[in-house]
Amino acid sequence: MRALVYHGPGRIAWDKVMDPVIEDPTDALVRVDATTVCGTDLHILRGELPEVKPGTVLGHEAVGEVVAVGHEVHSVGPGDQVIVSSVSACGHCPSCRDNAFGQCHGGGGWLLGGLINGTQAEFVRVPFADCSTRRTPGTLALDDAVLFSEVLPTAYEVGVRNGHVSPGDTVVVVGAGPIGLAAIMTARIYSPRRIIAVDLSSSRLEAARRLGADAAESPGRLMADLADGPGADVVIEAAGDPESFVLCTRAVRSGGHIANIGMHGRPATLHLEALWRKNVTISTGQVDTSSTPWLLDLVTSGRLHITPLVTHTFGLGRTEDAYEVFSHGTDTGALKVVLHRE
Amino acid sequence: MRALVYHGPGRIAWDKVMDPVIEDPTDALVRVDATTVCGTDLHILRGELPEVKPGTVLGHEAVGEVVAVGHEVHSVGPGDQVIVSSVSACGHCPSCRDNAFGQCHGGGGWLLGGLINGTQAEFVRVPFADCSTRRTPGTLALDDAVLFSEVLPTAYEVGVRNGHVSPGDTVVVVGAGPIGLAAIMTARIYSPRRIIAVDLSSSRLEAARRLGADAAESPGRLMADLADGPGADVVIEAAGDPESFVLCTRAVRSGGHIANIGMHGRPATLHLEALWRKNVTISTGQVDTSSTPWLLDLVTSGRLHITPLVTHTFGLGRTEDAYEVFSHGTDTGALKVVLHRE
Repeated sequence: MRALVYHGPGRIAWDKVMDPVIEDPTDALVRVDATTVCGTDLHILRGELPEVKPGTVLGHEAVGEVVAVGHEVHSVGPGDQVIVSSVSACGHCPSCRDNAFGQCHGGGGWLLGGLINGTQAEFVRVPFADCSTRRTPGTLALDDAVLFSEVLPTAYEVGVRNGHVSPGDTVVVVGAGPIGLAAIMTARIYSPRRIIAVDLSSSRLEAARRLGADAAESPGRLMADLADGPGADVVIEAAGDPESFVLCTRAVRSGGHIANIGMHGRPATLHLEALWRKNVTISTGQVDTSSTPWLLDLVTSGRLHITPLVTHTFGLGRTEDAYEVFSHGTDTGALKVVLHRE
Repeated sequence: MRALVYHGPGRIAWDKVMDPVIEDPTDALVRVDATTVCGTDLHILRGELPEVKPGTVLGHEAVGEVVAVGHEVHSVGPGDQVIVSSVSACGHCPSCRDNAFGQCHGGGGWLLGGLINGTQAEFVRVPFADCSTRRTPGTLALDDAVLFSEVLPTAYEVGVRNGHVSPGDTVVVVGAGPIGLAAIMTARIYSPRRIIAVDLSSSRLEAARRLGADAAESPGRLMADLADGPGADVVIEAAGDPESFVLCTRAVRSGGHIANIGMHGRPATLHLEALWRKNVTISTGQVDTSSTPWLLDLVTSGRLHITPLVTHTFGLGRTEDAYEVFSHGTDTGALKVVLHRE
């Protein structure tokens, strides 16, 4: 088959590789109908995640059809259209039994397109298929479905839910990429008073306004904007850099929440000399996808419109072009780029 | 009257000063029967809190008898024996009405012995007396009562409650001074599986063992101790220094809580590159004293024994000696030093 292979920092190629096969009795083999590129893939491409070895097929989001399953897989079978979760979960370890699938200690966690071959390929082997795939509701469009692999549950679980977004809140979202925008969309479910998006890119600020932010502004403007009040009830970090995190700690009110979604490669400065007495809560996290059924219901019932998050589509054979467009998203206006089976 | 006056970094004296008077209709005037010295007082003495001006009477913990009240004070009156809270609370602002008395925006907050004259004196003016004093239960010993001004509710609210200590947890308390020890005592209420105290001082580690820790060890030992398991469910920072905070972030398990009680004068490094995916919650806070009735009930009913936290008593006139003994607590074995009216 063909797949997008990482060949070391700065180098990827749409290569001919061995077809995946069922290796473990809990595996499913999935034919990829749609996959997408994530900010994490760009971190890998920049060599910032040395645990990802050259030769790995990238990608951890997909929707596709099950073509084979190991003999211990019971919840899906050949012919099923499934959403593949970005995190694989054994379903048996203490973390999994506590719904913390992203923290699986039984051999799961973030594997696909990282520690094992991923979804930017014609076929993918999905480990622990019972807890790592989910049948796609028939009424759900393919481009919407692929957002359930990671983007939507991450933004909701790690940002909105961990940040305790509540009716009447002032919510700040720092970073208006796909995850930040999905956080804005899912924060609106809780009727906050005001959502302020913060980014450096004018195209992303424009997207934030279009997708539900009440205000969209530069980091510099934010503090002036909040100066008249106690600060934000909830601040969601969706940029993944130390300066953004510090901005979050400055923007939050006493008693407020900071929810970090961003993936960080470097430490940040925690200004405890200002924060120690502020009754602030800071949360971090990786998606568990435990909220997926609830989010699916919101989308299929028409209460949550996520389609605008997908701005570009390509055939799978053009995955390298998709990387190019996605990596220049702040210029191209690209949010999620979806790759379809050809 | 006589009072302990701060005269700038390194200098305090038991001076003759003007008697306090009722200044606002919400004030109470309290004759101090017992007061104590806090780690915060040592920070002030080292000049680390420049907002505290020379000439200020120090101290923010006291038990005493009300001698006069302003005409808007309704909950206590002359002759009442009261616990004076370390934080003053207007009772009317949004924070106070949300029980976040320590975050009062109506003119309260930490005032006593900081922004206004404090309790290490023969008399003290207590602002917002209705929400900042509480009648002392008749059965409560004076030395126990003074621990309710700050030590006990701080350790409980900011450490144990914000850290969500639960039955069966492994709890680590970094810093075995009076606050850390009170955290160990109040954590035991929830039947954790194991409490590990961490400190550099052998006398404090010994105190921790005596007061309820299952293990007491150096920071270096802690990580080896936790190496076989997932890490601690709850880590309480009660030392107030950046290195201790970093240790807390290393000791916590995925999905665990870090509750910062320590007062920090410098920023800490937050290793988001390790923490971003760990589902960790970090909380900070200043005491609200909203838990005081519940804690009082636990002590007066004999379920919580706090008396061992007081190791030394002095007459008020020997306040300078008390500072000397308290500031060398890691050598002298001093925990709380209580000053009595003579």
